[in-house]
Formats: sequence, structure tokens, C-alpha cells
Amino acid sequence: MKIDGTEWRSIWLADDRSTVEIIDQTRLPHEFTTKSLHDLADACRAIRDMEVRGAPLIGATAAWGCFLAMQQDASDGSLQRACDELAATRPTAVNLRWALDRMQRVLLPLLPKQRADEARAESLRICDEDVDTNHRIGQHGLALIEAIAGRKPAGEPVNILTHCNAGWLATVDWGTATAPIYLAQDAGIAVHVWVDETRPRNQGALTAWELGRHGVPHTYIVDNAGGHLMQRGEVDLCLVGSDRTTRTGDVCNKIGTYLKALAAHDNGVPFYACLPRSTIDWQLDDGVAEIPIERRDPGEVERVNGRLTRGGIGSTAIPPEGTAVENHAFDVTPSRLVTGLVTERGVLAADRASIEAAFADREA
Amino acid sequence: MKIDGTEWRSIWLADDRSTVEIIDQTRLPHEFTTKSLHDLADACRAIRDMEVRGAPLIGATAAWGCFLAMQQDASDGSLQRACDELAATRPTAVNLRWALDRMQRVLLPLLPKQRADEARAESLRICDEDVDTNHRIGQHGLALIEAIAGRKPAGEPVNILTHCNAGWLATVDWGTATAPIYLAQDAGIAVHVWVDETRPRNQGALTAWELGRHGVPHTYIVDNAGGHLMQRGEVDLCLVGSDRTTRTGDVCNKIGTYLKALAAHDNGVPFYACLPRSTIDWQLDDGVAEIPIERRDPGEVERVNGRLTRGGIGSTAIPPEGTAVENHAFDVTPSRLVTGLVTERGVLAADRASIEAAFADREA
Repeated sequence: MKIDGTEWRSIWLADDRSTVEIIDQTRLPHEFTTKSLHDLADACRAIRDMEVRGAPLIGATAAWGCFLAMQQDASDGSLQRACDELAATRPTAVNLRWALDRMQRVLLPLLPKQRADEARAESLRICDEDVDTNHRIGQHGLALIEAIAGRKPAGEPVNILTHCNAGWLATVDWGTATAPIYLAQDAGIAVHVWVDETRPRNQGALTAWELGRHGVPHTYIVDNAGGHLMQRGEVDLCLVGSDRTTRTGDVCNKIGTYLKALAAHDNGVPFYACLPRSTIDWQLDDGVAEIPIERRDPGEVERVNGRLTRGGIGSTAIPPEGTAVENHAFDVTPSRLVTGLVTERGVLAADRASIEAAFADREA
Repeated sequence: MKIDGTEWRSIWLADDRSTVEIIDQTRLPHEFTTKSLHDLADACRAIRDMEVRGAPLIGATAAWGCFLAMQQDASDGSLQRACDELAATRPTAVNLRWALDRMQRVLLPLLPKQRADEARAESLRICDEDVDTNHRIGQHGLALIEAIAGRKPAGEPVNILTHCNAGWLATVDWGTATAPIYLAQDAGIAVHVWVDETRPRNQGALTAWELGRHGVPHTYIVDNAGGHLMQRGEVDLCLVGSDRTTRTGDVCNKIGTYLKALAAHDNGVPFYACLPRSTIDWQLDDGVAEIPIERRDPGEVERVNGRLTRGGIGSTAIPPEGTAVENHAFDVTPSRLVTGLVTERGVLAADRASIEAAFADREA
């Protein structure tokens, strides 16, 4: 998407065709800087230190990590080591494993001297496919926004609430939940986004940054505010992402998503999850019972990062020293609270029959 | 309640019987300091700068402010000026107005030379009445906790979720939502409290501090986490306060309370609001439609206060500079989501008949 008028992606091949470039997301939204990845170690660090984040972007970065490794040493052993090291950076990321499996499947049958060129080509394909998938999600979601806009008085924006960052920064471009919003904005439909802060890591600040740089009107709110806004009729539509979706339509997404789904249901506000097919787990029927929820570092809850009053980026600790803290990263929204799933194959009802019919051609 | 073994109140008369002492809550939970209020200006500053906070404590501080003014000048004009200046410090606080009206009613008929002594006596009465009211709320709420404890396996704590700080720091002692918890702890019932952070002002840090100092087991969580915990059966009971309660049982409390009530309802977790009679607004039937919601300084959302890494207390800004921000301070939980109201007259159903019957002797 655009940053102040210029088109960007979150990851790209440099003009030298051997270096990979990323936006350093650890500095956002306070500083915009890019970084060059020259070798496998750079790619591993970028994922582990969350310079890149978001399941699709992590997958793409892992693919590029294989390419960087093949440039240095294209042996079978090097490929295996690259995949092992990359897989260890974020052990629970589904797309990371998926991208590495794909790279191994493509590269292993080749002669070593062919591997660097093919790794480059396959990484470019993975990135382009991600962009295409998100664009399709955007087109299907755009129809939902257009329908709401058609029912509102002329000039009144469609108010959309989103949680976390399912934006272009979390993918290669467009984002999932944000793709319909960007397409609506570009089509001249008036939109306004309520951006949930999304404690503990405040990914809402990333969403506010990317919406602002692309020129989409938005307002930053604390996670506590969405229910009140829905009660007062100030939300027309909720659009969120999904980290993992059961084949029955339960949505596992950033902690707090479930609370917004409850409020949407209580106030008759449509609540959609925007997700690529790759997030659907074909083994799961009951998300609440079956999906293990990652518990992360309590320090993420204790400390908040931001701009310090005296300048620079730093953090401040909120609860009393030594306070016990829990940090669950995700929650599960049961399908009964999900109006629909916006996928690259269209908007689906959040139930097994609709999901299986849309992806009947999937691999077993 | 106790701070590391020693009994405290949030406001008290010094041994010289002419100075009023408070805990400076702007430094909590990071530093524990007390302050002396010597005159009317000190009392006004304490309320305005939120050195004292919480409706009952604000009311008590206003009463003491009248006393301090009467010590300096006990004329009719001085009393009127004191009430005007104190009322202007937090114009929307209901208890502030109530306390000032009471002081004027008591003091105006007296000779000026009698006023300082009587203002002291009336302020002490207001404080003692608040302590007594909260203790009664605690006893009625304790029965709820005891009943749950009786159904749990021996040794398993009763898990209670609370939002904001409806603790002893917000009152003169005991708190409202915390009174049942302190009584349970003191009675040897195993309890564990999930403390909602309560962005934007993070009053959960105050709750964590006072629970910790009194020795009550607790865990600090982000506001997004409560729904997930309830889905997983890790919450037995929700206890919250109320800033304003309709005669029909709708509860206006800190922003985000409604989201927790929805999650409690969805998971069969009992949800009680603990409140004194003084929060009931006998004019209101529909809280969502009729209660105006205060919109506060966006800076409270933008910046987070806490302990800086390099030492001292400071703040850090989260969203990009210039981001539009909304800051609604309260929301309304409809009575249909409220299991009951824990009052000084007992636990009431959240409906008009029960509330009016319990307070049938109220002034018109």
C-alpha cells in the first residue's frame, strides 16, 4: 500500500537481486526504517526479533531466508540447516512451516547450482500469491462495505472496527482485514476505522500508522471502548483477521477478539473474519476445546513501549513490581458469533458445509 | 485495609486534629507517599489532580475541605466559597455535590464559632458511614463467595474477576467490589483475583497494589483477556463497582465493564455490581439511552504512565503522533446482564421492583 503517496510492500528483493529488504517493524509506528537481509542469520533474526511479524509475512521471510542460504551454500546440508534454523525462530507459526516445506519440496530435487535462482523465483511467487490472495479477500469484503454504504445517508462514512493488525504490514501487501478497507477507500467510498489498541503489544498503533500513511480516516481507541461504541450505533461492521480457523468456522485470533464478537452479536453489528485458506485447520471441529493458546512473556503485559517524553523510544512498567501476570496471546470466537468468513473464494457462512464446499479442491 | 500488616484508611485526621492526611494516589502503585492537607486550596488540588480519586473518597475529601476552610474563616461567605471551589474541581462527581450539600445543611444554621468543630465531626461521620456501608456490602458479597467456595474442591481458590479499582483506595476503607474479597480473605476462604488492567488509566495497577499489600493472591491481566479466561472456566465470579445505577438496575461503570458482563453471560459466570445506595439514580429507567458518557482527555489514551527503565516515573506515547483518539470514560451494562446488585441492604435482583423495595424508606 502507499506510505505518503509511494507504493510499498512489507518485504522485497533489492535491485541487486541478491539482497532482501524489509521494513523494521520494531521501530514502528515511531520511526520508519528499512533493513537489508544479506544472509540466513539476518533472516532468522528478523523473524525472531519481530522486525517482521504477521503469519503471511513470516512465511514470506522464511522463503527468502532459504534463498539467502542457497546463495551462500546450495548443498543439501545447507538447505536442511536453513529450514531447521528458520523453523526454530517462531515455533508455533503455521505459515512459517508451510513456506519452508514448500521451499524444500521445490529445491531438493534440483542440482545445487540451480537452487539459488529457483529459490529466488519461488520466493517471488510466494509473495505474489500472498498479494493476490489478499486482494481477492479485499474484493469480496469490499462488497460488504459497499452494501452498508448504500444503506447509509450520503456522505456518512461506513464505520469499521478492527482488532490487532491484520494489515498490509502483517502480509506482503493489502492485509487481510484491511484489504476491503483499502479497496473501499481507493474506490471513493467514505470509510472510518475504529482501531483497537490491542494490548499487550499495541498492534493497533501499527494499524493506525498504516491507515494514516495511506490516508484512511481512523480513530485509535482502547480495547475497552468497542462495546460502548456498538451500543451507541457507531460501528457498522467489524473486520478482524484469523490466525487459525476451524473447519467449522471458529476463529482463533488475537486475545480480545471474542469480546468484540460478543458485543457485535449483542448489538446486531455484522462481524466478519478475513482470512486466507491457509489459516483453515481441517482437523479441528471445536476451537475453544481444541486450540492450544500460546502463553507469552509476562513482560509484554508489564511494560509498554512507546515514545518517551524526553525523546527516543522506551518502555514504562505499569503494575507494581513483582505482580503476577498472565499473557494469553489469542482467544477463540465461536462460529455462532461470526457473521461470515471473507476468503479469497468469497464470503462464506461460518459453518463446515460452506467452508468445505468452497475449498472442495483442497489437498487431503 | 492493611498495607504490609498495618491498618490504613485512604483519608484521616492527623493527631493535631486540624490537619487532614491522604495517600497520594498519583504516585501509586510505584511509590507510597502521604500528603498533608492544611487548607482549602490543598483539598481542591488533591481532588483536581487526582491525588484522591473514586466517588466516595472524593466526597469525603470535599467534606474535609469544608472543615479546613472553616478553621481559617468560618463566615457564611467563606463556607459558600469553599463549596463553590470544591464543586468545581470535578464537576461530574455525584458524591462531591452530595457531600457539599450535606456540609452546608449542617453548618449554615450554626454560629460561625461552632462551625469548625462541627465540620470536623460531620466529616468524621461521613467517613465512618462510608466505611460502614462498604463493610455491609462486603458482608452480603461474602455470602456469594462462601457459596461458591462450598461447591469447589477443597483448597481450590474462588477465582474473582474485577475491573477498574473499586477498592479501598476509591473509598475511605474496604472498597465496594473489593469488600467481599477482603472479608473472604480475612475469613480464611481461598480467593484469587483476576485484575483487569483497565486502560486507559490502568486503575488495575492500584487494585493489584492494594490486594498485594493486604496479601490477597491476584494476577494482573490485560482487558482483552477476561473473555478467554471465562471460556476456559477460570473465573467463578465477576465483581465490579458502579458509578451510577438506574432504578431499573442498569450499571454505568468504567469503560469495558459491559464487555466483561457479555462474556460472563455467555459463559454462565455470575456477574455482580457492588454499590452503595448513593449511586442509584432514581430518575433513570434506561441507562444506555439516558446516561451521558463523559469523554475525557485523549492524552490518557495516547500516553501510559509507569516506571521508566532508567528509573523514576514517566510516560510513553503509543499511537503515531497526531493520531485521532477517542476516550469515553464509562459504559453501561444493561440489567439483563447483571446477576445482582450487592448493596448495603443486601443482594438485590437488578430490577426496579427489587431496588425500590430495598430502599422504600428513601427520601423522595
